[in-house]
Amino acid sequence: MQGIKAFLPILDWAPGYGRRQFADDSLAAVIVMIMLIPQSLAYAMLAGLPPEVGLYASIVPLMVYTFFGSSRTLSVGPVAVLSLMTAAALGRLDLPSVEAYVTAAMTLALMSGLILLLLGFLRLGFLANFLSHPVIAGFITASALIIALSQLQHVFGVSAHGENLLVLLPSLVASIGESLSSFNWPTLLIGVGVMLYLLWARRHLARILMQMGLAKRLAIILSRVSPIVAVAVTILLAWALDLGEAGVSLTGEVPAGLPGLTRPDFSLEIWLALLGSAALIAIIGFVESVSVAQGLAAKRRQRIDPNQELIGLGSANIAGSFTGGFPVTGGFARSVVNFDAGAATPAAGFYAAVLIAAATFFLMPLLAFLPRATLAATIIVAVWALVDFSIVRKAWDYSRADFLAVLSTIVITLLAGVEYGVASGILVSILVHLYKTSRPHVAIVGEVPGTEHFRNINRHEVVTHEEILSLRIDESLYFANTRYLEDLIYREVSARPQLRHVILMCSAVNEIDLSALESLETLNRRLLEMEIRLHLSEVKGPVMDALEGTHLPAELSGRIFLSQHQAVSELLAEENAA
Amino acid sequence: MQGIKAFLPILDWAPGYGRRQFADDSLAAVIVMIMLIPQSLAYAMLAGLPPEVGLYASIVPLMVYTFFGSSRTLSVGPVAVLSLMTAAALGRLDLPSVEAYVTAAMTLALMSGLILLLLGFLRLGFLANFLSHPVIAGFITASALIIALSQLQHVFGVSAHGENLLVLLPSLVASIGESLSSFNWPTLLIGVGVMLYLLWARRHLARILMQMGLAKRLAIILSRVSPIVAVAVTILLAWALDLGEAGVSLTGEVPAGLPGLTRPDFSLEIWLALLGSAALIAIIGFVESVSVAQGLAAKRRQRIDPNQELIGLGSANIAGSFTGGFPVTGGFARSVVNFDAGAATPAAGFYAAVLIAAATFFLMPLLAFLPRATLAATIIVAVWALVDFSIVRKAWDYSRADFLAVLSTIVITLLAGVEYGVASGILVSILVHLYKTSRPHVAIVGEVPGTEHFRNINRHEVVTHEEILSLRIDESLYFANTRYLEDLIYREVSARPQLRHVILMCSAVNEIDLSALESLETLNRRLLEMEIRLHLSEVKGPVMDALEGTHLPAELSGRIFLSQHQAVSELLAEENAA
Repeated sequence: MQGIKAFLPILDWAPGYGRRQFADDSLAAVIVMIMLIPQSLAYAMLAGLPPEVGLYASIVPLMVYTFFGSSRTLSVGPVAVLSLMTAAALGRLDLPSVEAYVTAAMTLALMSGLILLLLGFLRLGFLANFLSHPVIAGFITASALIIALSQLQHVFGVSAHGENLLVLLPSLVASIGESLSSFNWPTLLIGVGVMLYLLWARRHLARILMQMGLAKRLAIILSRVSPIVAVAVTILLAWALDLGEAGVSLTGEVPAGLPGLTRPDFSLEIWLALLGSAALIAIIGFVESVSVAQGLAAKRRQRIDPNQELIGLGSANIAGSFTGGFPVTGGFARSVVNFDAGAATPAAGFYAAVLIAAATFFLMPLLAFLPRATLAATIIVAVWALVDFSIVRKAWDYSRADFLAVLSTIVITLLAGVEYGVASGILVSILVHLYKTSRPHVAIVGEVPGTEHFRNINRHEVVTHEEILSLRIDESLYFANTRYLEDLIYREVSARPQLRHVILMCSAVNEIDLSALESLETLNRRLLEMEIRLHLSEVKGPVMDALEGTHLPAELSGRIFLSQHQAVSELLAEENAA
Repeated sequence: MQGIKAFLPILDWAPGYGRRQFADDSLAAVIVMIMLIPQSLAYAMLAGLPPEVGLYASIVPLMVYTFFGSSRTLSVGPVAVLSLMTAAALGRLDLPSVEAYVTAAMTLALMSGLILLLLGFLRLGFLANFLSHPVIAGFITASALIIALSQLQHVFGVSAHGENLLVLLPSLVASIGESLSSFNWPTLLIGVGVMLYLLWARRHLARILMQMGLAKRLAIILSRVSPIVAVAVTILLAWALDLGEAGVSLTGEVPAGLPGLTRPDFSLEIWLALLGSAALIAIIGFVESVSVAQGLAAKRRQRIDPNQELIGLGSANIAGSFTGGFPVTGGFARSVVNFDAGAATPAAGFYAAVLIAAATFFLMPLLAFLPRATLAATIIVAVWALVDFSIVRKAWDYSRADFLAVLSTIVITLLAGVEYGVASGILVSILVHLYKTSRPHVAIVGEVPGTEHFRNINRHEVVTHEEILSLRIDESLYFANTRYLEDLIYREVSARPQLRHVILMCSAVNEIDLSALESLETLNRRLLEMEIRLHLSEVKGPVMDALEGTHLPAELSGRIFLSQHQAVSELLAEENAA
């Protein structure tokens, strides 16, 4: 039973499910449904997919997550960044038809779902940690910029392409220039109008609703679902004024009702072509989702299990791929709305999915009149909130290493596209970390007079002795820094002709790997040839445990002291006795 | 002047050069020359090159290193592992002629020389550190096995090919099987005879020479140059018995004298094809050379400068590429002989190069009679000494992480070839290191009664308090472990309903990067929402310096204490007062 429970978090809360939870969850479901519909349509468009695909992706994945996810309030569905990544991945494939494009999107969902599931079963969720905070922040900002720019074409009623600024910007400018003579003013009016309305709603609507007497929570929630108003109004306008005839690009006829079971592509060629993209989508989706889920869980002193989240998100994507969907994950805005609307259990997500499924039946005919400019404006306003360059300044102030990682992520994402951006961000973070630990901080230390404390000779007034060199190494000893430390020690030693003892103070050494062990053995041998003895002090328990199985303690020309004070005083006594 | 001196170590010793140094250096030069000639011929054959290329590679590079290298006793020239790597790199290119092959080898030398020079000027010598000791040991052993196997064909007088065991072994067995009916016994006799002689010489010759009254040092040196005897004797035999007619494969006519200036290939296609190989050859050559040089320098309390070594080796390879050579580096055996023979300054290398240049004039006609089996036997005996699987056992005993790195290096080198072997070794070491530091050791600590020391509650009898959780984190806080630590802290916190304070004891935290800083800020905020305050203790100087520029100290719900003892006692006092 415990074994099953570990993989089905639903068993945690379903037994205690009662009328109260049902009431809370249903209300949240209605609100989330209203919010999800325009979002799903918009993000499908961003991914280059027909709008109904966005709705399909918001039905079964949402239901499946209910059973396998560990967060109680996460709302799963299409999100901006994954949609952009989907567009980038599929754009490269040069597919012959819309059907092939849709199938490839489902295949991408299947593959990233399988990757998530695999990582979950192997308990490899920690891999996501290699996306550092600054890299994620830089990546989100740069992606949001690309997304906003890519949607401007729909607001201007022109067409542009490109997955990075170098292609997108010239393409956009050129096509706006070309269409200047035959500019479609109604499209621009709708696009700009919706953007202004949404920006106004974000700033003022909640306050105005409260002044009208609504409760604060309700007012905030209603202001969050304002895009549905824009959708409804512009559909009405397009129908009433026959804007399609006036040259406004509309979504057009879409099939009503639910899709049947769909079949992703299983050809090896497509899988090889999409593998890298699927892995990046899986990781980015997971990281985004986990941070949202963790933030919300902490507010209620709940916990989420990252490995279980991998399984939940993986199952959701796999299920989505067989029901006409594309890559999904837990979204920030919708999850916050779900949480604020009072969702008590994951069942809220299930109900929202049922409502969306029902909506597809009566909604599809209306979508024919939905202007693309409305969706584009919704996307632009949504992602504009994500553009935040403050991380660049923060990183610059805090450390050059983090700054380098952020800057390269932003620049490469903007200039080369999302996938290169993420990959280079991960790579730069790792290289910078390795570089830093390969040249650790080493302090020559001396005794603070009248105490047993040893401090950096450059920072404090301390006592040293010319026969003894005490070095405190502020880093684990491992392959990347052994040679640096050897060089440093030989340099210090060759500058001190009177030297008889070198003491390595190991209070901050958390590990000694085999390279470092061999390096210590060599150091010991070579120092002995110079008639200098090597000692260690303040070696930690786990490190000492490892050393005790080796020849080092026996071969060491010097001794291993419990404390640095003891080391220096005993060695001085020996020297004076001799 | 100081600036020039930094790049021309020769200015350090040349001014004090006198008659005594000249006598020492000349003797060493003669001995090294005698040793280098068979080695150079053999390693050229191993690289798939005509034998004279080996001699060319031992002339100008040796001279150039004299001016730019920082080691006083390193002997630069062709070495076994680089020759194998050269063969592997060029074998893939499918070149149309011997001339094209030789030109490609010179190009490889030029490229790896440029890479070394670039790393030297950018002071990036530390990059070589990412080849850990166990990976190098595993790589050398596996390469030596492949080299020995690849030379067996010449001993058996058959022909085989392949850069890894999966290809080489079947090819060798098949061609021995095919030639069984027409087996060339004289070739096998020469090959096996030379091997037995060399093995005997290695074990017993020095002792016998000492018994004959020679000084120990001279006896050891003479035993080391025994390959020249095998070369001379088998040349004589081949000439006297006309072994060429008897089907023994001989080296054949080679051009006498020195090569003119040669021109490497500058086509983009070749450069792109060789780039990866050139980088690996540069790194492996550098690492091998630096460890030899450092070992010898330490014996005389001298120092070498790794960045200067990059410049020395880089210049040597570039010079070699324009004078008919192929990739070279400092070799272990020859450098030890040079050192033992009493070389006082790098001039010894210069003299040896002059002697080799002179030798090419009268030596080339003799080489026509040199059996290939003699060279192959020389190689096999030389590399057999490098095969040492003890590192596998040592790594297994010491740590599973190092074991994994060694094993994968050996297995992949043997099965896929040298380049994949090195690359995977570097990659596995880094991944294993990141994995380990991403799940750091964290101890819940309590106070040892009657002291101010805090120790792991699982290892010691200590006092704890249910309102206070003290965690000692034995690792720097950085992006790869922030999420792990957050999870761990939330898990511990949610199991302790009485908890009011979390203290992170940072005595082993050598760095807090921006991800970790943001993680601490989030942790602080979320714990506060649970009415738990977050404190830090024993933060190191450099880490505290970095934190002081941030919002954390001001936003922290708790305080930053100098010592863990102070933290617990003051918080307890506050709790009791409340």
